[in-house]
Formats: sequence, C-alpha cells, structure tokens
Amino acid sequence: MQDFEISEFEHRLARAQRLMHQEDLPVMLLTTEPEIRYFTGFRTQFWQSPTRPWYLIIPQTGMPTAIIPEIGFDLMQKCWIDDIRCWPAPRPSDDGIKLLESILLNYTKVGLPMGHETHLQMPLENFNLLNKNLRVNWHDTTSIIRQLRMVKSEAEINLIKSICDIASRSFDKIPEISSVGQPLSELFRSFKIDLLNEGADDIPYLVGGVGEPSYSDVISPPTDRRLSLGETVMLDTGAVYKGYYCDFNRNFAIGEPSSSVKKAYETLWKTTETALDYIRPGVSTSDLFQMMSDTLQTSSSDVGRFGHGLGMQLTEWPSIANWDHTRLMENMVITLEPSIHVDGGGVLVTEENIVVRDGRPELLSKRAFSDIPIIGLP
Amino acid sequence: MQDFEISEFEHRLARAQRLMHQEDLPVMLLTTEPEIRYFTGFRTQFWQSPTRPWYLIIPQTGMPTAIIPEIGFDLMQKCWIDDIRCWPAPRPSDDGIKLLESILLNYTKVGLPMGHETHLQMPLENFNLLNKNLRVNWHDTTSIIRQLRMVKSEAEINLIKSICDIASRSFDKIPEISSVGQPLSELFRSFKIDLLNEGADDIPYLVGGVGEPSYSDVISPPTDRRLSLGETVMLDTGAVYKGYYCDFNRNFAIGEPSSSVKKAYETLWKTTETALDYIRPGVSTSDLFQMMSDTLQTSSSDVGRFGHGLGMQLTEWPSIANWDHTRLMENMVITLEPSIHVDGGGVLVTEENIVVRDGRPELLSKRAFSDIPIIGLP
Repeated sequence: MQDFEISEFEHRLARAQRLMHQEDLPVMLLTTEPEIRYFTGFRTQFWQSPTRPWYLIIPQTGMPTAIIPEIGFDLMQKCWIDDIRCWPAPRPSDDGIKLLESILLNYTKVGLPMGHETHLQMPLENFNLLNKNLRVNWHDTTSIIRQLRMVKSEAEINLIKSICDIASRSFDKIPEISSVGQPLSELFRSFKIDLLNEGADDIPYLVGGVGEPSYSDVISPPTDRRLSLGETVMLDTGAVYKGYYCDFNRNFAIGEPSSSVKKAYETLWKTTETALDYIRPGVSTSDLFQMMSDTLQTSSSDVGRFGHGLGMQLTEWPSIANWDHTRLMENMVITLEPSIHVDGGGVLVTEENIVVRDGRPELLSKRAFSDIPIIGLP
Repeated sequence: MQDFEISEFEHRLARAQRLMHQEDLPVMLLTTEPEIRYFTGFRTQFWQSPTRPWYLIIPQTGMPTAIIPEIGFDLMQKCWIDDIRCWPAPRPSDDGIKLLESILLNYTKVGLPMGHETHLQMPLENFNLLNKNLRVNWHDTTSIIRQLRMVKSEAEINLIKSICDIASRSFDKIPEISSVGQPLSELFRSFKIDLLNEGADDIPYLVGGVGEPSYSDVISPPTDRRLSLGETVMLDTGAVYKGYYCDFNRNFAIGEPSSSVKKAYETLWKTTETALDYIRPGVSTSDLFQMMSDTLQTSSSDVGRFGHGLGMQLTEWPSIANWDHTRLMENMVITLEPSIHVDGGGVLVTEENIVVRDGRPELLSKRAFSDIPIIGLP
C-alpha cells in the first residue's frame, strides 16, 4: 500500500496540525473514507460494506490513532499509522465506542466535519451514546478539511493526470466502438472495458444522456435505447486510478448535428477557452461563475454550478457557483463544466479537468475538439 | 427506469406503512441511497458525489414525498413517485432544509434509521438546524428498514440470481485467464473485464489475497506481486446488476496445494454443506453461527462473522454471528462465509450466496468445487 511516499503523509498531518493549532483545536475525529485515506493511505473497496464503522483521531501534536475493525488491521499496518486499535467488528453492543471514549474523554473540544459536503459515517445512536458518556463540544472542522484537500500535492496531481490520460485515450476511441443502432448500454459497456484496458482501476461513475436534438437527463444509467441519427450522445465518467478520480465528459453528434446543437457546443467550447484565459491564482470561484455566465449569456445552471473540485472524490470543494467565494490557489484541481439549453429541447454540458498553476492553468484532460465530433457516418 | 413493476413499490410501501402503523409512527425520513432507491426505484451512480443531500419522506398513509436536488428531477420523474420537490442544489445556505421543515413541522415524532449499519447522509450542521427549528422526537426505524429489506421479493431474488450467474461464469474462467508469473493486478483487471463482458453493470467490489500457504489480508486492492507456485490466491467480488449485488469468492491453489491448504479448504467446504443442510426458515443466525463454529472446530472468526445478508448493498442485515438472533425467513438472501486458520500461516475464506426457501435453501452462486481448484500447472 504505497500510493505515496511517507513524506506526503507527514506533510498532510503537519498542515492539519498547523490549522488545528490556529483554531485552538486539540483533537479531530474523522469517520469517512476520503478523510481516513487522506491521513493514512488506507485504500480499500471494503467501504462498500456499511456494516462496520472506521475512526481516525488526529491530535494537535503527535501521531494519529486508528480505531478500526479487526478485519482492517493487516492493511492498516501496511500504511503509515502505527497506533492501531481494533475490536472484533461487527459488535453492535460496542462497535468501537469504548475505544473511542478512552481517547476522547481527555478532551472537551473535539473537531468533526459537520458542514457542506460532509456527513457522519457512524450510526446516529452511537454518536448519541458518545454525547451521553462524554462532555464534548463538537467543533466544525469542515473548513480545515476543505483547506487541506482542495490544494493538491504534485503526487496527487500526477495520479489525477494519469486517470485523465486514460480517460482521454478511451474517449478518443468512441468513434470506433460506437455505431448507429447500437444500444446505449452496449456503448457504455464497451467504454468501461476500454477504460480498464487503458489502465483505469475502476469506473465508479459513468452516466450519460442521449436525445434529439440533445439530452435532458445527465445522471442516468444507460438504457437499451439505440443510437439514432440526429441525436446527441454524451458520456461522463469518473474513472479511478489509485484512489483518484477524473471527471469529464464528451459529446458526440450521431450523424450531422443540427445547427442548434453546433451552436450550443461552440458556445460551451468558447466559454471554457475564456475560462482558461481567466483562471489564475487569486480569482474567486464566484467571479469565475459570473464570467462563465456572461459568456454563456445565461444566469442559471440546471446543475447548480459550472464546475467543482476533484480528487479523492468525484466532486469536492470548491463549487464554481455564485455563492462560493473561494479564491483559487495554485495546485487546486477543478472541473470546468458549463451547460446551456439547446434550441429545440434538452441541454448540452461539456467538462474539462484542470489544475490551477501560477499563470495559465494546466489541462489534465485532453481538450475536447472545438467542433462537436460526429459519429455514425459511413 | 423500470427495474421493477410498480406493484413491487406499492408492496414495499404497504409493508412499511403497516410496520409504521404497528409502531405508531406517523412519518419516516430517509437520507441514504439504498433506502431511497428501495422506495422509489431511483437508481444512479450520482451518489458518488457527496455534494448534494437527497431526502425521502414516507408518511404512514399516502404517497412518499421526494425532496431532492433539481439535477435529479428528470430521473425521479421516470420513477414511481409523483410528489417531487426540488431546489437548485448545491445551495449551502439552504440545501433542502426549508423544504424538509415545511413537511416535518406537522409532526412531533419522526422516524429515522439510527442503529447498526445505518448512518445519516446529510451534513450534521443541517441536522442540528432541523432540531433547532422543529420540535421533533426522532424514533429509530432501523428495525422497520431491516424487516423490510431482509426479505426479498422474487423480482429482487431474480436480479441477485442474475449477477450470481454472471460472476459464476467469470470465476469458471479464472484457470484460463490466469498464469504463473502474472501480476495479481493483471488477473484482477482481466476478471473485471470478463465480468463486464458476461453482463455485470459494475464491479464496485473486487478484493482478494495471495500468500503461501495462504493469505492474511482479505480486503486489499491487488498489488503487482506475481502469482507463484505454492501460493493460494483468492478473489472476492461484489459485482452489480441493476443495482443488486452478488458477494462471493473463489480460492485457487497455484500449483499443487500443500496438505494444510487442502485440509482447510475441505473443512470449509464441509462446513458450508452442513450449513445448507441446517438452514431452514425459523433457524436463528446465532444458532447457525454456532453450528458452523462447531463444524470448523473454532469459536472465533477474524472477520467477526460467518456470513451476512445481501441485496442492494454488498453486506446487509442479518449477521451470522453469535450476537445476532435473527430468525431466518423464507426469501432472505444471505452469504455463507466460513473462515479458518491454515497451518503454516494465513487464513482461508470461502463464500456462497443462497436464498432461504421453505425446505432446503437455494444456491444462487454456482457451488464451489469440493477440492480446491488448481491453476498454473502446464
């Protein structure tokens, strides 16, 4: 289990502890997969099982303590953390709670992510039990986690770049693996297999749409509906390499596109170009949203925003939205995802993945063609 | 989006409302993917994104109300639910909370799953806000959800049977797609591709182990370590078809197995046979655990249990464990997962998927060979 050098984890912990010091926070409790992986390197698909809770405690000084089910001991031992305390989970009568209490009883103020895009990954009745047995004031650490995870290390950027390269190569093969009359579900299947062949570890996310002149639903699994001339088809993938995501899409006209689709696609493409010119460290995400809205000549977005952070999760902070005033910083990885209504029905969405650099941002996805690519012509 | 007939959802709702009536519970709030999908049919990989919360409210009489982000409106409209209320999420200043309050303010007692294997999929600060603005007594509905989801309909069993068939066919091909000297990661990749070719929609879970004479870590992603003669390799997959999981594994000796591995495998195989003879409606899972312990001549299990429920999630209630006294009922789908220490080091785990029937249970996975299969011989 060495996705990273140990120095990566040392650096993450040091940054966390510096922020905890600034907020006068003695300790922080983490319960969710990305957070525990961020600080330990513990990477497993075992989180698919909801049965067992996992805990990590980060003190303001010193090393973290993992309080985890016995079944994870072997893997956690291969990680960076030495202080690993286990119980024979599942054990509903005490699923790690006494172990948690034995540490937390030393504190009156405990950090916990409680804000936007977070949740508590433990049974609520166990959390209530902690509150009954301890005198703890919970302190929201969403801001600490956000600040840490939004800015990526070069090692993290390299992993995201790797999966973006993989997906870019697979998207390039869509004209080969698609055909008029093919059920959408078959195209999705072929695309997934190609992603695996190109080196993706997994494809936790592949959604898309098809419609004439364009699609309306952008989060659905594929149906068996057959690709037909005159339609637009979109595939959007969050594929994963060593626990890091890409998240971008590609649109294809099946046969000659209508003028409304061509025009909408061009507008989106230009909006992304303008955004690439505009993005610099220090620019706020709300200003970026405004700039993209102006270029699109729309003030609304059905998806609620024009992009978001990307990394260990498919979507992360920040949001490119009018309510998010995050200042872009060097080495933030974000998506640019403008969307627009198409004359005649449906929407069109395009997406690219970039990393903010000192100067012009660096594209991680291979830039989409400036004209909508056409498939299905003989 | 028609994984099921509408009557399936009508039946689920009626069962829920009967149990709510018995517990004198006027309303129930659900926040997690399987629960919302169970009652609506809303199936999307968009849950990979942690950004937006999703809510479903089930009253004791009448139809459910979905309170969901705008981006899900199109897909939810294709489902069974008519009362869909949306907001332009993400909107951290009010991410659906006012909409939730507008319904919940009519109640003083509200159900919420709070027990084992559940969690609250919303920011804790939003839950605190609800508690501040409403006078609600939360009532744990874990037992209601458990009772509903543990017993499967024939339509659900058919989907689980489909994915078990798919995985059984792929496991049968391991001798063809594996070879001595092959990196474990390559075998995993080939196996995943085969699962997709055989008809799996996704493979959210594929873990395994390799070791001599056996493995110790059963939740890890694969390394690039090469398969070597004298080792045992195990692959354990949770593949998915239309939102339903299989969860079983297969073991292979690379070259001639050691006598300790052969003996351990035989003991596990016989334990499963004995369990298949023993399992009937009315048998408790703790008695089943005891019977399996006796056959294995061990009282402990490093994985904490000898099997579990299976369906919309990789692991579900009940547990085959000494602390779980669930009475097996017809149409419960469970895994049988005995594990044993191997002389010379490591453990061996086998797993099958079955459905409890009136009489002998029905195997959903194709039964493993009675002797450990050998790969890698010329």
